[in-house]
Amino acid sequence: MKIAVINETSAADRNADILAALEGRGHTIINAGMTKNYAKPELSYIHTGLLSAILLHLKRVDFVVGGCGTGQGYLNSVMQYPGVFCGHIITSLDAWLFTQINGGNCISLMLNQGYGWAADVNLRFIFDRIFSVEPGAGYPPHRQEPQRQARQTLSQVSVMTHRSMTEIVATFPEEIIRPTLDYPGVKELIDVDSIEDEAFRAALIKRI
Amino acid sequence: MKIAVINETSAADRNADILAALEGRGHTIINAGMTKNYAKPELSYIHTGLLSAILLHLKRVDFVVGGCGTGQGYLNSVMQYPGVFCGHIITSLDAWLFTQINGGNCISLMLNQGYGWAADVNLRFIFDRIFSVEPGAGYPPHRQEPQRQARQTLSQVSVMTHRSMTEIVATFPEEIIRPTLDYPGVKELIDVDSIEDEAFRAALIKRI
Amino acid sequence: MKIAVINETSAADRNADILAALEGRGHTIINAGMTKNYAKPELSYIHTGLLSAILLHLKRVDFVVGGCGTGQGYLNSVMQYPGVFCGHIITSLDAWLFTQINGGNCISLMLNQGYGWAADVNLRFIFDRIFSVEPGAGYPPHRQEPQRQARQTLSQVSVMTHRSMTEIVATFPEEIIRPTLDYPGVKELIDVDSIEDEAFRAALIKRI
Amino acid sequence: MKIAVINETSAADRNADILAALEGRGHTIINAGMTKNYAKPELSYIHTGLLSAILLHLKRVDFVVGGCGTGQGYLNSVMQYPGVFCGHIITSLDAWLFTQINGGNCISLMLNQGYGWAADVNLRFIFDRIFSVEPGAGYPPHRQEPQRQARQTLSQVSVMTHRSMTEIVATFPEEIIRPTLDYPGVKELIDVDSIEDEAFRAALIKRI
Repeated sequence: MKIAVINETSAADRNADILAALEGRGHTIINAGMTKNYAKPELSYIHTGLLSAILLHLKRVDFVVGGCGTGQGYLNSVMQYPGVFCGHIITSLDAWLFTQINGGNCISLMLNQGYGWAADVNLRFIFDRIFSVEPGAGYPPHRQEPQRQARQTLSQVSVMTHRSMTEIVATFPEEIIRPTLDYPGVKELIDVDSIEDEAFRAALIKRI
Repeated sequence: MKIAVINETSAADRNADILAALEGRGHTIINAGMTKNYAKPELSYIHTGLLSAILLHLKRVDFVVGGCGTGQGYLNSVMQYPGVFCGHIITSLDAWLFTQINGGNCISLMLNQGYGWAADVNLRFIFDRIFSVEPGAGYPPHRQEPQRQARQTLSQVSVMTHRSMTEIVATFPEEIIRPTLDYPGVKELIDVDSIEDEAFRAALIKRI
Repeated sequence: MKIAVINETSAADRNADILAALEGRGHTIINAGMTKNYAKPELSYIHTGLLSAILLHLKRVDFVVGGCGTGQGYLNSVMQYPGVFCGHIITSLDAWLFTQINGGNCISLMLNQGYGWAADVNLRFIFDRIFSVEPGAGYPPHRQEPQRQARQTLSQVSVMTHRSMTEIVATFPEEIIRPTLDYPGVKELIDVDSIEDEAFRAALIKRI
Repeated sequence: MKIAVINETSAADRNADILAALEGRGHTIINAGMTKNYAKPELSYIHTGLLSAILLHLKRVDFVVGGCGTGQGYLNSVMQYPGVFCGHIITSLDAWLFTQINGGNCISLMLNQGYGWAADVNLRFIFDRIFSVEPGAGYPPHRQEPQRQARQTLSQVSVMTHRSMTEIVATFPEEIIRPTLDYPGVKELIDVDSIEDEAFRAALIKRI
């Protein structure tokens, strides 16, 4: 699986812990966000939300690990976009349930609140559980069918309630799109020339 | 403040606990969702998410208290709509921080997972903290300004990334809109004739 | 490892969950307490604390899994006896840290408070972590030595601050010792004739 | 109420947070332990446990707030002594339940594990709940009577299973008693000449 780790500025110091917790699991990890609190150039959760949505939309990654101080800001930011399904994951039980029941493609971690000693171990436990169960398998067994239906309907809802990523990229204000696309490494990740969807490629080229 | 409590089917048995926890605070409580698990007619989190968004959009309520078994399903559902900012609130500390930092208009409660003995007391503690601080005041003081900016930007993002509620109501499939609008009490709450926004009124009238 | 599961009356309904969570790990499980809330004969945490201490003292088991509604009552009860070192274990991180740092021989689980949906899975996660690390290994590495010393000193303190189990059994009031020793299966577990420590055997024979 | 705050070395940096969280409640606070991690002279949880027990036994304080990295070490240390009833308190709900159900005279806080951003606010919330309910009132109402009985029995058990504080102080090894009694301020707090219990006074005088 290809996983992007995308940290915003207020909890970027946790980036190393996240990378360490993901290590040795056979996944390709793309460290796309910040690695140090309040460093320049800076990404707020507004930017990391947009970047997450673009990478998921382009299928550059299968899964995004984001977060912020409490996890609520990034969650509310990344959930603004179509095709993003994000869990607020604090414990390994949250991880295990969200993966099976909601089968999302994104998690938002709480990276300052409650982030004390051994929180790095807790991250490891969270990933242990995410990768130990089948995404979207449903839990418990007798609720699998309504859960499957709810996920499928939610997917359709997401398309119907949102503008397309092409429209979004085309119309977003400079102060959001600029720091996101200009962030070191982002253009390489997006690799605009290889985008097959012509409209989205055209929209992105105009903004890059 | 006008607060809607909106429960979906899998955790509707908690409805009475939520109402009790909100009591005696001087707010107007509108109990708009289910009150008993798996009763008929049934609302899934797909429906409670839509209902929440409609009531907030119409300013019928200032705040929505929703949730589901883990809190993640309703969260992902209600966040599909423009103008909704929802926290995943498990503890009184989450409540206190989310209210000040994110100043959202919705919370998603975890109503089966971890919902054991004295969980009704925990709900009371959560509401104690939500109503003890100023929404959007920012915390801690030195982060107030970037937090205020992030909230404001997120508000604009929400408009830009979503179709309008008018479009959404006009185009949504019957299987989502029907159970939501037909749910007992919903038409009275919406009170379509009193809606000032003509386009939205027209769209709703067609679906009602 | 020989593990006793000892439930008191207010959370005895969780007994089946604990047994299930311990299953398939290659340990010998002795289900020594209650299996159903408020059944007769009844054991309060006063009794389960004493029973735990006797079984540990006799080395009939290496480890005791106890608990009560909040975990605090059993904890305070079992900690009255010499040679018992008990952790209050709520999460898998607690389990992992307590096993390594404190290397105790007993845990107290929170079996009503917060015990909602998927709490049985959480128990499984707790035991996964207890049995994945070396008891008393210390954590993190640079704190191993002071932690080892503290554990060793605590062991000596426990002997110096307590009366011996022989004195305790000899002098305890009937209303505590009677329900404990008369509880179905306890006499067989104690197997008084096989006790090598003469004084303790004599004391127990008088009370049985 | 007279409250002692007693920090051991590994989490002494949290001392200021605890003092701040206790402020303005009308209690007399005695800051009897460390105030800075790994400062000299150093108190481990072995020493803070003993100091807590002495101050409670002498009724120099009504309540002790202790703790350590995970809360488990201090808990196991302070529980070695007669007349100490200690809760492991992580959340405000723990605080509220423990105060009412167990009515203890001591709490052990988790001061490194999970101690991240806003943990100082969480401490405040914990004390808000401890001081908002009647110690030992029982909860819920229909369990008040068995809970009252259990507390009373536990009190008697504590006397029967432990050596007296006089014996303990008389026989404890130098390496435990020395750093405890020699800690700055401890002799003044104990104020040996004013102790009415002759045996205990005599025992303490020999060790001081």
